[in-house]
Amino acid sequence: MAKAKVLTAQADDFPRWYQDVLAKAELADNGPVRGTMVIRPYGYALWERMQAEVDLRIKACGAQNAYFPLFIPQSYLAREAEHVEGFSPELAVVTHAGGEELAEPIVVRPTSETVIGEYMAKWIQSYRDLPLLLNQWANVVRWELRPRLFLRTSEFLWQEGHTAHTTREDAAAYATRILREVYESFMVDVLAMPVIVGRKTAAERFAGAINTMTCEAVMRDGKALQMATSHELGTNFAQAFDITYLDDQGATQHCWTTSWGSTTRMIGGLVMGHGDDDGLLVPPRLASIQTVVLLVKDEDDAATPARRLTDELVGSGIRAVLDDKVAQSFGRRSTDWELKGVPLRVEVGPRDLAEGQVTLVRRDRGEKQAVPLSEAGSRAASLLDDIQHEMLAQATKARDAQTSEVASLDDAAEAAQSGVARLPWELVRGAAEARLAGRGVTVRCLQRADGSVPDDEDEDDLVAYVARAY
Amino acid sequence: MAKAKVLTAQADDFPRWYQDVLAKAELADNGPVRGTMVIRPYGYALWERMQAEVDLRIKACGAQNAYFPLFIPQSYLAREAEHVEGFSPELAVVTHAGGEELAEPIVVRPTSETVIGEYMAKWIQSYRDLPLLLNQWANVVRWELRPRLFLRTSEFLWQEGHTAHTTREDAAAYATRILREVYESFMVDVLAMPVIVGRKTAAERFAGAINTMTCEAVMRDGKALQMATSHELGTNFAQAFDITYLDDQGATQHCWTTSWGSTTRMIGGLVMGHGDDDGLLVPPRLASIQTVVLLVKDEDDAATPARRLTDELVGSGIRAVLDDKVAQSFGRRSTDWELKGVPLRVEVGPRDLAEGQVTLVRRDRGEKQAVPLSEAGSRAASLLDDIQHEMLAQATKARDAQTSEVASLDDAAEAAQSGVARLPWELVRGAAEARLAGRGVTVRCLQRADGSVPDDEDEDDLVAYVARAY
Repeated sequence: MAKAKVLTAQADDFPRWYQDVLAKAELADNGPVRGTMVIRPYGYALWERMQAEVDLRIKACGAQNAYFPLFIPQSYLAREAEHVEGFSPELAVVTHAGGEELAEPIVVRPTSETVIGEYMAKWIQSYRDLPLLLNQWANVVRWELRPRLFLRTSEFLWQEGHTAHTTREDAAAYATRILREVYESFMVDVLAMPVIVGRKTAAERFAGAINTMTCEAVMRDGKALQMATSHELGTNFAQAFDITYLDDQGATQHCWTTSWGSTTRMIGGLVMGHGDDDGLLVPPRLASIQTVVLLVKDEDDAATPARRLTDELVGSGIRAVLDDKVAQSFGRRSTDWELKGVPLRVEVGPRDLAEGQVTLVRRDRGEKQAVPLSEAGSRAASLLDDIQHEMLAQATKARDAQTSEVASLDDAAEAAQSGVARLPWELVRGAAEARLAGRGVTVRCLQRADGSVPDDEDEDDLVAYVARAY
Repeated sequence: MAKAKVLTAQADDFPRWYQDVLAKAELADNGPVRGTMVIRPYGYALWERMQAEVDLRIKACGAQNAYFPLFIPQSYLAREAEHVEGFSPELAVVTHAGGEELAEPIVVRPTSETVIGEYMAKWIQSYRDLPLLLNQWANVVRWELRPRLFLRTSEFLWQEGHTAHTTREDAAAYATRILREVYESFMVDVLAMPVIVGRKTAAERFAGAINTMTCEAVMRDGKALQMATSHELGTNFAQAFDITYLDDQGATQHCWTTSWGSTTRMIGGLVMGHGDDDGLLVPPRLASIQTVVLLVKDEDDAATPARRLTDELVGSGIRAVLDDKVAQSFGRRSTDWELKGVPLRVEVGPRDLAEGQVTLVRRDRGEKQAVPLSEAGSRAASLLDDIQHEMLAQATKARDAQTSEVASLDDAAEAAQSGVARLPWELVRGAAEARLAGRGVTVRCLQRADGSVPDDEDEDDLVAYVARAY
């Protein structure tokens, strides 16, 4: 029986497919104020799992969570010249509060370098207070003219890390550690997304940074998505906010600071990086629901083994739920769980049960297999492992197929219409980078020939990844 | 040796003591914008533990987390008359964004009944969609003229639950369930705070509610602190936002909604409910650090058993850390951990170790006991249990000692200068409630004689708890 398609096909209209998935899998809705977003429970559960996994890795790198105010005096932003220039067009400004006009307008934080800089300056006295490693989970606001759910919204949720160090080397090493041990590790090992890790060009840096490093993912339509960034801020903010320390000789020195962030945009990346014409695909390690036990019909006491199997799965540490809403058709429920990308379904029905069996269905391959009821629990656990690995392998294959090695700027611009192009950085740097940008193609990042992250964009033999991007 | 006091004594100046503790235990700082707050890592770790425990209980009651926008169109608030009147004086208003003046000013959410009401109306079609049980963790803004860290800040963090039901009974039962199974359970079992649970008078209700229920705690200075509230909203918001459903006869009905919240104010309650002249006391179940292993001196290889013991404690599930910063004096470090209220210290020093011993120090009683190193782990676990129970017992004793049974309004006003007064509600209701308020004393809540929560303030024989309050 051919299934009626509930989504626009990716090949027909990828942006429309994306909107369809968000709506039908109940991930998010547009908010009432331009560019804002309502994250629905199923979407928020993905975010909670992302938070848990990222937070674990951040704490393992020694950073502590704190919370700084939403409201920032407008004067703070002005203290770092590039920073204020970068963010001014996107600011939301509070001019009235408590029934009165304010003497100084207040900015709703677009990011917290400035306010955190102010407190670092208070808290840091000597080299013994360093490194100071802070992180916060918060909402930020950047007014968007062309909003798109999860990808670019006027308000989004994120974590922002802010650290201060005694030396440039120490700051650089920490920014790199976060890039690798938090972001890349999370994206590869949990999201099953084989991100391209590299250095941004000067043109693409964060406003106020001396170096921005990035994890870039390739979406199924061939566009790139910046998934997270880690910045060396040099002493720019330390000079603007007097973040100094006494060194072991008693001399006053400026700190070297970093910042790094990942946002709810990762949910958009997950959708467009793994999704297919049947909907979302959530990798098992991320999934808030790893397995759904689907009661086909409530006949011949089929509900009892379905409930028992769910309990067994939960007891063995699998995030499993029971769907026994038999008032809705089995086909409809089955399609809904597919849409939501739950990695594994266990169908429990009277016909199978009569033979002592249940049916396991993998979301990634769509394969069905009947297994004895008694083995369903252990089979589910090993299938979830398989799916996790297979999703990373498939995504890696897809990324490589979407990446072309080219030798000229024209070929790069051409290849970037449907994927990512790799070419020598020397062909792009300077005026050529701006020409590419004029054709909607940007340098996503630079790598050394061996795939490592360069210390400088002036190194020899660097490779540029260029693409259209979200 | 008498210790130099690092805090103002509670008896000398309680508000000053409170400020001292927040600063010296590094819980929080004032933010740069009036009334805002910086929550420092140790303070935020308390909040993370509160979130984890409250979130667990909310999910056990079937509610799902979601996220709604920070920005609310000003027109939304106006739709519910009491609500807009209650919140208007406290609003922060965004008038400019993206470099332009906005056509309609935007309010920074003071609470989310209105915006969530709008989406409930979209999502609810029939009785099959009910109950709809939502919660969000978020920041909210209520402009404060007399801010006080954690207790009243212009921005604070909280969870706000919002639910919709088919009947008044179902809504009332759920609001009560949250009050008991989330708030009271968390406060009594985790915070070790014996809260008084009751119904607010009409004068003290949430703006737009038909019933507000509360958990009130008694601080060590005898004032009350509202720790969390749960509201029945009747059909007020359902009418304002068209939250309707089709019942099983196909007729359109208004939903009955509830909302309920708990905030970072609970941190202030924890400090003032348990703290003493040596600082904070954190109950073990809440503590982010339950046990600190304090290396006295780094001599005779004392660091090795200290590290091994810390690992053993962590391995057995105790949140333990090692303090081996022997460059600072032992006395100073010891005082700092006391200030921070870590429930149990284990002092590991060469002299004790020579006799195969370490010293355990309870924060609540200040008692020290030497125990064999090999038994330290198991003793620590059982002492933490003891401390948890003892803290609740002590707090209950203190609350009861601070509560007077009185028979007249004058006696109530008098008793409320140093504690809580209990008296018949019939002596207070009507004009007398306003007269009390004129003397700085409010009705914190109403209970039945048996301590249960009344369904109505017109019931006979109700008891009123009155006090000064934060």
